[in-house]
Amino acid sequence: MLMKASSQSLTEQLAGRFSERIRHRLLAPGARLPSVRQCAEQHGVSPSTVVAAYDQLLAQGMVEARKNRGFFVREVGAPADGQASAPVGPQGIHVAAHWIVARRSSAPVNATALIRGMFHKISDKPQPGMGVLPAEWLESTFMPAAVRKVTGTKMLHDVSLQYGEPLGDTSLRRALATKLAGLDVPASADQIITTIGATHALDIVSRTLLRPGDPVMVEEPGWAVEFARLTALGMHLLPVPRRADGPDLDVMAKYCAVHKPKLYVSVSVLHNPTSYCLSPGSAHRLLQLAHEHDFHIVEDDTYSHIAPPHASRLCSLDGLRRTIYVGGFAKILAPNWRIGYLAAPRPLLEQLLDTKLLGTLTTPALLERALALCIEQGQLRRHSERIRTRLDLARARSVKLALNAGCRFAAEPAGLFGWVDTGVDTDALSQRMLDEGYLLAPGALFHAERKPSTLMRINFATTQDAAFWKKYAELVKRM
Amino acid sequence: MLMKASSQSLTEQLAGRFSERIRHRLLAPGARLPSVRQCAEQHGVSPSTVVAAYDQLLAQGMVEARKNRGFFVREVGAPADGQASAPVGPQGIHVAAHWIVARRSSAPVNATALIRGMFHKISDKPQPGMGVLPAEWLESTFMPAAVRKVTGTKMLHDVSLQYGEPLGDTSLRRALATKLAGLDVPASADQIITTIGATHALDIVSRTLLRPGDPVMVEEPGWAVEFARLTALGMHLLPVPRRADGPDLDVMAKYCAVHKPKLYVSVSVLHNPTSYCLSPGSAHRLLQLAHEHDFHIVEDDTYSHIAPPHASRLCSLDGLRRTIYVGGFAKILAPNWRIGYLAAPRPLLEQLLDTKLLGTLTTPALLERALALCIEQGQLRRHSERIRTRLDLARARSVKLALNAGCRFAAEPAGLFGWVDTGVDTDALSQRMLDEGYLLAPGALFHAERKPSTLMRINFATTQDAAFWKKYAELVKRM
Repeated sequence: MLMKASSQSLTEQLAGRFSERIRHRLLAPGARLPSVRQCAEQHGVSPSTVVAAYDQLLAQGMVEARKNRGFFVREVGAPADGQASAPVGPQGIHVAAHWIVARRSSAPVNATALIRGMFHKISDKPQPGMGVLPAEWLESTFMPAAVRKVTGTKMLHDVSLQYGEPLGDTSLRRALATKLAGLDVPASADQIITTIGATHALDIVSRTLLRPGDPVMVEEPGWAVEFARLTALGMHLLPVPRRADGPDLDVMAKYCAVHKPKLYVSVSVLHNPTSYCLSPGSAHRLLQLAHEHDFHIVEDDTYSHIAPPHASRLCSLDGLRRTIYVGGFAKILAPNWRIGYLAAPRPLLEQLLDTKLLGTLTTPALLERALALCIEQGQLRRHSERIRTRLDLARARSVKLALNAGCRFAAEPAGLFGWVDTGVDTDALSQRMLDEGYLLAPGALFHAERKPSTLMRINFATTQDAAFWKKYAELVKRM
Repeated sequence: MLMKASSQSLTEQLAGRFSERIRHRLLAPGARLPSVRQCAEQHGVSPSTVVAAYDQLLAQGMVEARKNRGFFVREVGAPADGQASAPVGPQGIHVAAHWIVARRSSAPVNATALIRGMFHKISDKPQPGMGVLPAEWLESTFMPAAVRKVTGTKMLHDVSLQYGEPLGDTSLRRALATKLAGLDVPASADQIITTIGATHALDIVSRTLLRPGDPVMVEEPGWAVEFARLTALGMHLLPVPRRADGPDLDVMAKYCAVHKPKLYVSVSVLHNPTSYCLSPGSAHRLLQLAHEHDFHIVEDDTYSHIAPPHASRLCSLDGLRRTIYVGGFAKILAPNWRIGYLAAPRPLLEQLLDTKLLGTLTTPALLERALALCIEQGQLRRHSERIRTRLDLARARSVKLALNAGCRFAAEPAGLFGWVDTGVDTDALSQRMLDEGYLLAPGALFHAERKPSTLMRINFATTQDAAFWKKYAELVKRM
């Protein structure tokens, strides 16, 4: 809310709000600012206040005016003051992901904006677009106890003063091998490589198995960061529709016939954003297709800790022959520890390990060893059970509120995320909700081409708040 | 040494030694095993023992026989048992680095072997090829004290249970900004991005500024991991001879005219492997060239903590306009913490940050905050001074021993590494010294094309041992 009593003028407040949003990429380069009239109406100020605010942004080089079309956010990297050190030509492979997003659509909340939203505090309110559990859900006494155990001077020196093991801390890899055996995924400790979160594991797999230009099959809807990363690496994305029981195998078969993709990237269990789980039959047919067309599959099992028991995993059916398993702990223990891992077929191990070494050398063993203690002593398992129970309650409450607010569930509610149909364009809705201090995850974000959508992803842990749904219903009604 | 009294037969011992070396990449794929006669002589066993050992390796699928040419190490990823899950076609971009190394030369110690040698314990002896200081040099009381401060339950939860800041821990970035100001590198905290070691910082820079196929200038001799990583990313390496005062600017100018490279990667101060330091004049002319031909420079200042005072840095002359500064703490505090950072011109920051986010999301703040404490309280600076003094003494002793053993210094001894001429092929010497439990860093490793060389890099901290130089002199004499 803009406030008259503030020490800043309304113009300054309005300009400040836009400039902060631009800085944090919540308004992407190329996005159009609301028209003067629209903006005045939304913020309850006079059109002349809006014009003055836009002029300030113009003077600061944050936006540009296009004749008869309005004001647009300037593109990142285009220097405002014409200095000589502007980057020449680096808008290459990496930046592509970002620019494509910004240029192809008018959608103002892009992939990196959402990631940054995970970190940047928009407001004190619970954030419906968040990808993790709230910090207070993750608090425990066993995690600090485990850390204290590994930070005694002797062990601290042991896990700090040498580069450490290339594969990762042995005690953690042993604990993970046991955990995987419980999921019927047959991986010994020496088939496991620890990484900087599941994201890094996926990065290692794609850098190892693919070269730029290679076709790779991804799920749609799917996780925006994965799309952005593969695009940044120069890969050719082939989006496969994700159904309730698994990927659309007819579409996959066609891709295989035409493009000969080398890899399929999948979140089989509690798929993001739908929370779908792969059916056993679909898993079997998918593996047959992979065998027939000779592609690898990387199975991202990030949500395993909150998954239903006996969920089907490709890696267990396949026995890690042409599948690579990826897991992490950001959703259950400590997002900032950045501990992930992969388990791979033996013939791929050396190459995957080389990719890890060339990119980061090793990974921090101190945190890995503390995590191993949490797993070994059964504490993480019990913690996960408690979280599942709490999440079940939260989901029940959140679903009720969402339905009352007029949402329709596009997928059966499960896991951490709900995939809901709002009936209105969620890109536009996201901008309006930002004004109220809420970051949403609009549906376009989960599409490889960022098609505008009426869908959005909600986090069941952070949408139990009646105040959010009230504001939501109000805004939807006005759109 | 093979031992008759062992529970294993001499054949098993010999086969075991080769298979371990192959597993750890100390004998690279494609490398030729010694002839039966040579091997028998070197190990003091009968030729029939050698033949039996080679037969075992053949049966295990670790080596292959080539008609009239002897035995060769099998290539990684080529499955020994012909199983269906063998990787098809993944010997792509990444693996290239490794294969080129293995195929272009008969050199058996390759880049990843040396990195793995840093981790894998060859023997209890001090290792002349090591890239870091021995663990006991790095022991301190201030580091454990700093860790204890950040692992109290409250702060531990703060730095663990959320993703954390994309740029990296604020307290560390502030401490680094102050440190950089001391080197006349003008970077504010918000121009600094923390990374998983300096290696990851270099990876982020090349992924952001280059796309596959782009020409990039590197120093020769130079750091093997950098060559391997850039090659794995599909870049076109342009090796620039590194002289005592800086790079060969004539060669650079020619590359600029023909290839228009976008980036030059340099270790200006205490260059690896020569320990050369860039002269102010050379720095100035290099920056002029960069301006004229519009390329960026990434300056890897990994050895800054042991650098002479007032060393010239490109980033300070240039004021971070077309230069990117990279630093790390593996050489002075805790190699396994994997804390590195980069400081970049503002126009590049957003793109570099996106690359970090897409690859690992954030980095572990717990260790970053502990490091910040070590820097803020001046303890790391005093620790560095003590290390420099100790290293000066070690260098004096090591240089004397090396000269007595018949080595000639190809570069004025300084810093951590000596660049010495042995007069014999150091690839062959490395294999012989491995039999004695010593890992060397042969000169070929520091050449982009891995040309055989009589040079090698020694670590002054680990070559004060008369026993090593005695064995060295003996073997060189017999070659």
